[in-house]
Amino acid sequence: LSESIVGMVVSVLVAGEAHGLASQALAEAEVTLEGFKGDKHSGLTHPSGSRTPWYPRGTIIRNSRQISLVSEEELAETARALELPELPPEWIGANLLIRGLPGFTQIAPGTRLFFGRDTFGSGTFGSGAVLAVEGENYPCKTAGAEIERHVAGRPGLAVQFPKAAIHRRGLVAWVERAGFIRPGDLVHIGPPEE
Amino acid sequence: LSESIVGMVVSVLVAGEAHGLASQALAEAEVTLEGFKGDKHSGLTHPSGSRTPWYPRGTIIRNSRQISLVSEEELAETARALELPELPPEWIGANLLIRGLPGFTQIAPGTRLFFGRDTFGSGTFGSGAVLAVEGENYPCKTAGAEIERHVAGRPGLAVQFPKAAIHRRGLVAWVERAGFIRPGDLVHIGPPEE
Repeated sequence: LSESIVGMVVSVLVAGEAHGLASQALAEAEVTLEGFKGDKHSGLTHPSGSRTPWYPRGTIIRNSRQISLVSEEELAETARALELPELPPEWIGANLLIRGLPGFTQIAPGTRLFFGRDTFGSGTFGSGAVLAVEGENYPCKTAGAEIERHVAGRPGLAVQFPKAAIHRRGLVAWVERAGFIRPGDLVHIGPPEE
Repeated sequence: LSESIVGMVVSVLVAGEAHGLASQALAEAEVTLEGFKGDKHSGLTHPSGSRTPWYPRGTIIRNSRQISLVSEEELAETARALELPELPPEWIGANLLIRGLPGFTQIAPGTRLFFGRDTFGSGTFGSGAVLAVEGENYPCKTAGAEIERHVAGRPGLAVQFPKAAIHRRGLVAWVERAGFIRPGDLVHIGPPEE
């Protein structure tokens, strides 16, 4: 099983209400059952949009896309595919940059991600936030356009991004348990054994 | 893919606040984002319990187990395994009895189940309730005890039920989209093609 797969939080970011997709790094995120406090994607419910085209636009549905998570390793692969020196998580509005979980975007829907700072076995790890994976985040031209806006002399990046980032654009998730998430926290796939 | 797999709602049931596990059949269920209206398992959040032993008991978490769904065919298999003439969904507190979806309990976490009465292609199917699969419901002795209580002269059923029902005790789910569900409604795995 996956007991031994432990990642680390590199960055914690929030996308405020300002227009645009971009997020900003913070020293910590307060995570409620609505999502990251202050993030525009927070809420127990939200209006349906382009991600759920089978509902009339604006139908109030339960929000299972509160938080966007990306992998440092996968972002580096996408940057290489686009021949970019860097691809910061801020540009594509991510909330969490994670290091050390191979095949991050393929983590199965329904998987719980446990966050905490304590070493396992201390009995206190379970005090942190827990996210439930909704599924793979499919890369879109909106995120591509934000990248293109940051890179001088590279018209076309908006359109190139979706293909370059497919199956490595990370996950969207909802909060099962409230808490705080900070850079340096560990990420455990499934309940830590205590 | 699964476009052509369509099941049918046989019964709609609600478990009221009365003690015990049992549910009662109704002519329709009003489904809100909290669950089945009037059901004791409803709520956008709920206190953690024996199903999430990694949280301190009573921690308020997101409720992803609002609704219990069982399959007519799987219930019949479990009844045969227990040498029972019947195993009504009421006894084990189910909210929906579904017919015609093979391997029901193995439907993957995150799958959306679309409910509606209209034939597909009419453009109006999408007005019904939509549930998101949390996952397999693991059979427990509490449900077994309720069965034993209904069957004269069969002590031991409480303990026999978990083994007899494993991987065919159905699913638990949460509501993505509100609506009504009625006996005779169709159940579509994933968005109906319209």
